Amino acid sequence: MEWKAIAEGIWKVTIGVPEAHTPVAWRKFPVQEEALKDMGTAKLPEVAGQITSRQDKRGLQIMLPMDTQEDIYGFGLQFRSLNQAGRKRLLRVNSDPAADTGESHAPVPFYISTAGYGLFADTFRHAEFYMGTSLEKGRSSHRREVNQAHEEFSESALYALKRNAERRTVIIDLKAVEGVDLYLFAGKVKEVVQRYNLFSGGGCLPPMWGLGVWYRSYGGSGQEAVQDMARSFREERMPVDVLGLEPGWHSHSYSCTYQWSDLFPRPEEMIQDLEGQGYKLNLWEHLFVYPAASFYQELLPFSGEYEVWNGLVPDFGTPEARELFADYHREHFVRKKIAGFKLDECDNSDMNASNWSFPDTARFPSGMDGEQMHAAIGGLYQGLVYDMFRGEDRRTYSQVRSSGALAAPLPFVLYSDLYDHKQFIRGMVTSGFSGLLWAPEVRSCRNGRDLLRRMETIMFSAHAIYNCWRIPNPPWKQVDITKNLAGEFMEDTGYYTDVCRRYHEIRMSLLPYLYSAFVRYRREGIPPVRALVMDYEEDLQARNVDDEYLLGDSLLVAPMTLEDGTERRVYLPAGKWHDFWNGTVLEGGKSYEITADYDKIPVYVRDGCILPLAEPVEYVSRDTVFQIHPRIYGDVREECTLYEDDFETFAFERGKFNRISLGVDAEGKLRVERSGGERERCRIVV
Amino acid sequence: MEWKAIAEGIWKVTIGVPEAHTPVAWRKFPVQEEALKDMGTAKLPEVAGQITSRQDKRGLQIMLPMDTQEDIYGFGLQFRSLNQAGRKRLLRVNSDPAADTGESHAPVPFYISTAGYGLFADTFRHAEFYMGTSLEKGRSSHRREVNQAHEEFSESALYALKRNAERRTVIIDLKAVEGVDLYLFAGKVKEVVQRYNLFSGGGCLPPMWGLGVWYRSYGGSGQEAVQDMARSFREERMPVDVLGLEPGWHSHSYSCTYQWSDLFPRPEEMIQDLEGQGYKLNLWEHLFVYPAASFYQELLPFSGEYEVWNGLVPDFGTPEARELFADYHREHFVRKKIAGFKLDECDNSDMNASNWSFPDTARFPSGMDGEQMHAAIGGLYQGLVYDMFRGEDRRTYSQVRSSGALAAPLPFVLYSDLYDHKQFIRGMVTSGFSGLLWAPEVRSCRNGRDLLRRMETIMFSAHAIYNCWRIPNPPWKQVDITKNLAGEFMEDTGYYTDVCRRYHEIRMSLLPYLYSAFVRYRREGIPPVRALVMDYEEDLQARNVDDEYLLGDSLLVAPMTLEDGTERRVYLPAGKWHDFWNGTVLEGGKSYEITADYDKIPVYVRDGCILPLAEPVEYVSRDTVFQIHPRIYGDVREECTLYEDDFETFAFERGKFNRISLGVDAEGKLRVERSGGERERCRIVV
Repeated sequence: MEWKAIAEGIWKVTIGVPEAHTPVAWRKFPVQEEALKDMGTAKLPEVAGQITSRQDKRGLQIMLPMDTQEDIYGFGLQFRSLNQAGRKRLLRVNSDPAADTGESHAPVPFYISTAGYGLFADTFRHAEFYMGTSLEKGRSSHRREVNQAHEEFSESALYALKRNAERRTVIIDLKAVEGVDLYLFAGKVKEVVQRYNLFSGGGCLPPMWGLGVWYRSYGGSGQEAVQDMARSFREERMPVDVLGLEPGWHSHSYSCTYQWSDLFPRPEEMIQDLEGQGYKLNLWEHLFVYPAASFYQELLPFSGEYEVWNGLVPDFGTPEARELFADYHREHFVRKKIAGFKLDECDNSDMNASNWSFPDTARFPSGMDGEQMHAAIGGLYQGLVYDMFRGEDRRTYSQVRSSGALAAPLPFVLYSDLYDHKQFIRGMVTSGFSGLLWAPEVRSCRNGRDLLRRMETIMFSAHAIYNCWRIPNPPWKQVDITKNLAGEFMEDTGYYTDVCRRYHEIRMSLLPYLYSAFVRYRREGIPPVRALVMDYEEDLQARNVDDEYLLGDSLLVAPMTLEDGTERRVYLPAGKWHDFWNGTVLEGGKSYEITADYDKIPVYVRDGCILPLAEPVEYVSRDTVFQIHPRIYGDVREECTLYEDDFETFAFERGKFNRISLGVDAEGKLRVERSGGERERCRIVV
Repeated sequence: MEWKAIAEGIWKVTIGVPEAHTPVAWRKFPVQEEALKDMGTAKLPEVAGQITSRQDKRGLQIMLPMDTQEDIYGFGLQFRSLNQAGRKRLLRVNSDPAADTGESHAPVPFYISTAGYGLFADTFRHAEFYMGTSLEKGRSSHRREVNQAHEEFSESALYALKRNAERRTVIIDLKAVEGVDLYLFAGKVKEVVQRYNLFSGGGCLPPMWGLGVWYRSYGGSGQEAVQDMARSFREERMPVDVLGLEPGWHSHSYSCTYQWSDLFPRPEEMIQDLEGQGYKLNLWEHLFVYPAASFYQELLPFSGEYEVWNGLVPDFGTPEARELFADYHREHFVRKKIAGFKLDECDNSDMNASNWSFPDTARFPSGMDGEQMHAAIGGLYQGLVYDMFRGEDRRTYSQVRSSGALAAPLPFVLYSDLYDHKQFIRGMVTSGFSGLLWAPEVRSCRNGRDLLRRMETIMFSAHAIYNCWRIPNPPWKQVDITKNLAGEFMEDTGYYTDVCRRYHEIRMSLLPYLYSAFVRYRREGIPPVRALVMDYEEDLQARNVDDEYLLGDSLLVAPMTLEDGTERRVYLPAGKWHDFWNGTVLEGGKSYEITADYDKIPVYVRDGCILPLAEPVEYVSRDTVFQIHPRIYGDVREECTLYEDDFETFAFERGKFNRISLGVDAEGKLRVERSGGERERCRIVV
């Protein structure tokens, strides 16, 4: 196989005749070649010479060796496992992955091996990756041990893999395919992830308001109820930046008209009122176009073969469908101050009964089939929305329920209809391997303690969002849906309101820090939310931690769930760690059985850093200037870099930003250096 | 499309170039043409003229119309739904189907529509059937209803399908395939099932002992423990016909040596002892051949490309592999009085971590690939075992964890590693549509009440089996695994022993009745265990009953689970029904909220029939003569037919059987007519 270097640390090989429609064929963003050069040179990974392929009537198969000691990460959003060694991954978009098969809202045909490489297969197909599950026949012919009759019963299958240090086979099964491009990325786990993200075009940079607190309101609310709730948040001094409307705003929602329903008689008045109070507005939608939608007839020839919920499936592989959809949205929403969208149920729900999605066989005018479109549709929609806002020189931060390969530059956060808090946490840990962001939404809560645990998690995530589509009053007033609908509030609503407000304020104080983490994502491909293995690959214990994550450069977050109660085990990698709440110093390289009340999420600060905490504001406006009080942890060994720009346009791409370096001088005093000539947005208070 | 009649009521069409390896290409049994003629003539179903197909690089697609009022059954063993209208079925062998996707231990590409036809696609591939999930684009363009914003939230998707009387599309998606044979079967649901079973070769006829009670012993038991337990059953007068040994009998079991372990130092002595006590012996195995097995080296060239658990996967598509496996088994087991086998973990467990199975890509010397082999392997193994026993003129009744198309003639019962009692009951209801038998095994029980409910269910099923591989003492002594292992018995073991014994005896009293039901399966293709819709298709309520079934001609069984407690709803179809226990007459055509103590399973006898109950024996031997006391229910309108033969060889195929007709004469007195000159095995006691 002839591997060709396509950028520093990245190689490509073409096997057979690849398909016309693939993630790379549909890429929107250029490879970040300069940033890749900045990472330094790298050698072609050894595995490149060990990859073989074969083609038959059934399709194309790729084989390569894998040692059972290797750890494997990636494959997109994965709820049920972190380390994919010894597992089979079926990469199919599935909104209800009930077992650990690899299926998810956002599967990605890309994985990272601790053997020093990452592999990306450029396909939209339901590829299956057998990650060292198989041993070629005859390899065990030397074995003669007998009388082990029952040992196996007590061992997990994964352990059975690990127990034998064997050289197994990775198999990539690409059915009905006559060729594929493979890409190899060199380096340690974190470097491979950076290279993959820079190959994708670099990470996204949300507007600052997107990092604030989001609140999606009750689906049955009309205009006045939404405005009243907005006012009540301000009256209660409860920081919220973004309000979201759920399906009820459409005159027909399953499928959509994209027209305001009777519940919203004067939408422009509402938008103006909300803007005046400092809110951004986000609209729920799906992309299945109901016959009463104004562009239905025009869209008909540029839609897929089958309807979903009686609506058309626009073929975003055609410029006509993209333009019809974008023109309508631009005129009616983007230019009327809507700040973003939430694309629901685009995630191949045809595992459900009835017509929740289109069949894999559906043909689209662009030449894509349904199988490809399932993998492509989330990304195509994201690109279309991105372009609309970019055309107005405004950044968006939006939501989508399906994504895939090369999605890092797209400013969208994934969410789902699932609820398990542990899985939500694991989703944050796994999604960062493949250029994805995951929102551990607060939605149904079993009780007040569950609300607190889930609320704490969102405040230390990429997306601090409450999705209250089923309750007309905030969850801190009542978590029980029936009582909430009846207007009955919890006895201790004062307590829950106070705790939530405190966490909203903590979130707001983290904004400049988080923004700068996203700038690193944008420029260097380092995910803002990361598994421990990315920063501590040599630490074999850290490799399998699936319930803690790094947030930005300095924080380690170990969320707790209702099931945990007030105790959990926390693993801290080597080095010193400072308790975020009380400053207690803990020695890393080991696990601690820690206790935390329901209103405390365990968070640890890496020793030797400066944490730039801001005075909380209630929302981010054009005039917001953050008052920053840097906190110094231990002997500072690294500088803390903050970025400031207008926080909402693409001016930063034209160099319009300042860089603020925080360091410590020889006397241990804070040193601040600012470069760039833009307006000050972060005032450092010493 | 040119449909060709291939037997009465069955038509075939060939689309493109079908694959070499398909269920029909590998069929072992001839189409039962005479029996099909006896069913009478039938017209080609109207749908034949509406089927279209198309081929592209991705594969072959078959389309046909489906009205949303149609009900759909079949697709093999289905645990999670009965009526497949509006659902997508993925036909992939999967040992852990965690969601209602169609995957199961025994998926079958065959379905029955209440529109008067059945369709079989002759493929081993992972076919996907979209059963009316999709509407062609533009079909809804007339719709204008708006402001329905929230109605959909409260409706199930399936209901959304049913609500609109729409003409949707059935799509059969056959990836990487260039052709397929389709078969159409005419008639009402039951007739279609009969025709499919007769096309398969007719149903299986087990030996009479196979219908008795089975007990699989503790996996850690040695020879003496097994013999002791056998003796204890006889001492306790607890009817048991078959004992099963679990993995521990192999010197190495994952993968297998097929050699006795140290736990069984004198196996022939044990077999002789058990035979003397009237037991048959069944051996657990899987087909992955460990290197220490005596035929490993010879098998190497006739095995699949990858190992499973370090063992070879024999390619039963080659005569060499079949002969090596069969010769060894014949010599060491079949001719040494072993009565059957249990084939474990052949059911594509590669959804699990590590190497629980071979990849879909694996190549086999016969030319099959892994995907095909997953669908074929259960059936090929069954055929091989059938042939071994047939060669000795002995019938077997055995167990297998995977099966597929055209399996009706194979005397095997499916089982699984799953546990949900409701799903186990639904498995009995669904498996009968596709020529499969399903065992609702008693295994783990949460408590004594759970034991009773599960035990009652098996006694009214096709396979009355306890699988006690984890407990050394019978469950009626202790259901708790830890206590059972420690030899601590339940306080009320006397009560549970008595109830179990009573049900064992009821099972034995049903044997001649069940045997005759299997003769109808063999000769007419009528499954012994059937969904209500088969006999009551015109009754729309009966069509969706998934927790009751018909057992033979006269019994309706409505098992209860631990979760039911002592109450459940029972639907009785039109006509009168007699309570099996107390004779109370209930009017059908409606549902009843019934109460049943934990030691009573609700069973109803169809009015107008004769139920031939036997005096229970402890086991079936060559000399067993059943003493039958016919019970008359209401005004007898139909004769009851019993069959007697040697109950264990294939002599019945050579006409060596008697037919006993039980009827009622003009004065209401029992009338018995016997035809055939064989030895009497059923003595009618009037």
